[in-house]
Amino acid sequence: MEKHILSVLVQNKAGVLSKVVGLFSRRGFNIDSLAVGETHDPAYSRITIITSGDEKTAMQIIRQLEKLTPVEMVRRLDDHASVSSELCIVKVVAERGERSEIMQIVDIFHARIIDVSHRTITIEMTGKTDRVEALLNMVEPFGIIELSRTGSVALERGEHNIYDI
Amino acid sequence: MEKHILSVLVQNKAGVLSKVVGLFSRRGFNIDSLAVGETHDPAYSRITIITSGDEKTAMQIIRQLEKLTPVEMVRRLDDHASVSSELCIVKVVAERGERSEIMQIVDIFHARIIDVSHRTITIEMTGKTDRVEALLNMVEPFGIIELSRTGSVALERGEHNIYDI
Repeated sequence: MEKHILSVLVQNKAGVLSKVVGLFSRRGFNIDSLAVGETHDPAYSRITIITSGDEKTAMQIIRQLEKLTPVEMVRRLDDHASVSSELCIVKVVAERGERSEIMQIVDIFHARIIDVSHRTITIEMTGKTDRVEALLNMVEPFGIIELSRTGSVALERGEHNIYDI
Repeated sequence: MEKHILSVLVQNKAGVLSKVVGLFSRRGFNIDSLAVGETHDPAYSRITIITSGDEKTAMQIIRQLEKLTPVEMVRRLDDHASVSSELCIVKVVAERGERSEIMQIVDIFHARIIDVSHRTITIEMTGKTDRVEALLNMVEPFGIIELSRTGSVALERGEHNIYDI
């Protein structure tokens, strides 16, 4: 199944996210990840959705998104012509003798330690999905207590914005 | 209006996000930000929602979330007893003479340049919402072409996980 990156500019008001997300679930299209935040104009939010499914259904969803009143613009991003990144914070078991080994891994991945307790270390990692997965693989043997990930956000490379064709 | 940070552990399948988000919109509760991603167990996703509203409605929403079948656990996080972070990528106008000034700002905020073109620089910034806002304020005068933000993700400080009381 193909992966699709959709960047959707919407009016920032109650119920809009619900409409957008509902459209996917009605079509049985799973949302692999979703990130939503205000743009620099607080009247608008931008939703980045990573979804997987066949090309035909993806095109139908895009056309239906475009018809929703609170949707200003829908853009499908090409993975190679865009920059994307996600954020993960993960709490790992770190017995005293293991701390330095975990800190080495954190360094290698240019990640950051944001909390520490007697038995745990909490790491913040930013990057492409496969890099985040690679870090998680490396810390898994120590014991992952819990983690929280954002979906990916993405922008086209170069000088364009979502309104340019 | 109070801010509430909700961490919701859900089954990872089509339609679940739609149910959770729908609950907020039916109550007229705006979602300020939402981030959803898989946990280390791919059968579950964790949704972090920042919302603002009165205490009574917040409690009602939490109780109703707990009743949804695909919801495993709802936790309300205390801002002071948790670590939180969000991610923003922002594309800024950077005429040749302005690049070094923008690079200084990037350094000060421990942000990172992830793309550059003849006329633009794209910056990736991770941190608490107020730090991200501060960076955006600093680059605003150069001209923001577009930006994409994740919602905040958050975990409790210390050794606990979402299942502990």
